[in-house]
Amino acid sequence: MVAVDGLGECGVIDLFRQRLELMPDMSVPFGDDVSAVPIGDGEVAVLKVDMLVARTDVPSRMSLYDAARKAIVMCVSDFASKGVQPVAALVALGLPKCLAVRESVVEIVDGLNAAAREYGVYIVGGDTGEASDLIISVSLYGKACRSVLMLRNGARVGDVLAVTGLFGRSSAGLRLLLDDNDVCVVSSKTRLVLEGAVFRPVARLVEGLALSRSGCVSASMDSSDGLAWSLYELMRMSGVGFSLNTVPVAVEAVDFACQNGLDAELLALYGGEEYELVLTVPSDKWEAAKKAVEDVGGMLIAIGQATEQKEITLQVDGKTRRIELRGYEHFANNSP
Amino acid sequence: MVAVDGLGECGVIDLFRQRLELMPDMSVPFGDDVSAVPIGDGEVAVLKVDMLVARTDVPSRMSLYDAARKAIVMCVSDFASKGVQPVAALVALGLPKCLAVRESVVEIVDGLNAAAREYGVYIVGGDTGEASDLIISVSLYGKACRSVLMLRNGARVGDVLAVTGLFGRSSAGLRLLLDDNDVCVVSSKTRLVLEGAVFRPVARLVEGLALSRSGCVSASMDSSDGLAWSLYELMRMSGVGFSLNTVPVAVEAVDFACQNGLDAELLALYGGEEYELVLTVPSDKWEAAKKAVEDVGGMLIAIGQATEQKEITLQVDGKTRRIELRGYEHFANNSP
Repeated sequence: MVAVDGLGECGVIDLFRQRLELMPDMSVPFGDDVSAVPIGDGEVAVLKVDMLVARTDVPSRMSLYDAARKAIVMCVSDFASKGVQPVAALVALGLPKCLAVRESVVEIVDGLNAAAREYGVYIVGGDTGEASDLIISVSLYGKACRSVLMLRNGARVGDVLAVTGLFGRSSAGLRLLLDDNDVCVVSSKTRLVLEGAVFRPVARLVEGLALSRSGCVSASMDSSDGLAWSLYELMRMSGVGFSLNTVPVAVEAVDFACQNGLDAELLALYGGEEYELVLTVPSDKWEAAKKAVEDVGGMLIAIGQATEQKEITLQVDGKTRRIELRGYEHFANNSP
Repeated sequence: MVAVDGLGECGVIDLFRQRLELMPDMSVPFGDDVSAVPIGDGEVAVLKVDMLVARTDVPSRMSLYDAARKAIVMCVSDFASKGVQPVAALVALGLPKCLAVRESVVEIVDGLNAAAREYGVYIVGGDTGEASDLIISVSLYGKACRSVLMLRNGARVGDVLAVTGLFGRSSAGLRLLLDDNDVCVVSSKTRLVLEGAVFRPVARLVEGLALSRSGCVSASMDSSDGLAWSLYELMRMSGVGFSLNTVPVAVEAVDFACQNGLDAELLALYGGEEYELVLTVPSDKWEAAKKAVEDVGGMLIAIGQATEQKEITLQVDGKTRRIELRGYEHFANNSP
């Protein structure tokens, strides 16, 4: 067997997909945001694991409390995208020796607990051991009717493409946090918003649950690997393309981009570490879907529609531009 | 808050126990081998996570295939000790850059898959990212009637104390594997058995399921932190002590100890990384329990009984000796 250097995260996942003996009649296709196992009466146990590695997922100025909180949010976001309420979490904690002290562990436990309770989850167990990095691996469990799960594979030509919020704050915030030489220009108010997006991300659980209850959604996933990445994934799983008429950029990201000679659309498309839902809705159900999300205090923004042509394009001022596939990926040689 | 240096693994778990908001009416007490969440009709979803960190849990001569296999076995063993069939696994994989190559990942995936299928489990999802250590965190899910779970807290005075196999092979094997200067004396046949115990541990799932079906067990746990440790845990959770009339030492461990001036009993009591079940059975059910295990090809060895006196003692040749609490623990300053 020939060793291929630098398998990306996708390469690793592909090897799992190719070599694992898959469970027969899986309720959710391998590679969707969550996994599901039938428990009878049309119900499924919904399962998900997400691993936070501080070295790659946590900027140095982020507190342990916020890092622990983020580990929970990352995983809850996947449940949100399927419209499932998570119930219980297990936490596997790898601790470097320097963090195996009361003060640090208390911060981590408190961050985990607060985030879990914020989303109605209880932490019911875990494991811990010494590791070189701080590792927080969160496994979530929930229960749902199989039929309510909003999978990645249901988008149909003509469906409205929508998101639950605006993009670009996290990737602008991350640039600010990595700006050791204070090169970036930014007002203190904008800085607060952008860094806050990195430090205290929010999972769209309330929105996801409302959407699932509404029965209006044909496909859905979260945007933790970036908006462009999510669009390509929905395309791959549903077999439709998408034509966008706008890139949903947050005003603070536009502001930051303008002041620093950056392209705000690129910040919004390729940021990653954002936890909005990206979803499709049959056009006759659009108003009902929008109302369902607004009724719980959220927003649903239409940004385009599903197309037969399997590509991702942006139509602005009568011109059509192709949106390329890029996204954050661990290990890859050419990560952005 | 005063920083206390060198919290042991137990110190970390205690902080979780103290500071987490616990799920009301938990079906299984926090800190048992598994967690459980009610799903209705007297049934529970059974959950467990176990994290393997290669740096501390895998000797250097162990293959990636066997390391991956062990990560599954560690977690299945906890299900075995409760008498629950695991159904699905999630795997969070932290990969050092040097292992993010096809050959290594294939070995890991194949080891995970083979071990999962060996115990009737399917791997249904996972996550991966770059880390400094090889980390394999396995979460298992299963479903069971709450009433069949064999918890740690049910031992009663007079119950027979029993184990599903003999001890000491793994700790002797580990000494051999760490013996870089070839100081240890051992026959090649014994070496094969001892190293095999480290490389290819076995979870007593068939035995645990048979015991659970028999309804004969009052308390049970696995012995992954060592036999002595398990006895102290059962004592703490059940509120009874144990009087042993023998230490169940494997003949290969006795052989190794004799040839190398070691105490075989210590190898058996404080080894850890062994996956036998340690359990109690009301004396009137002993024959039925023994038969249940033998019917599935296993063995059940009586080694003592539960006592009112809350201590762990060994009675041999009319003398009583106290068995001290020691066991392998991550981070601790004084790990053996």
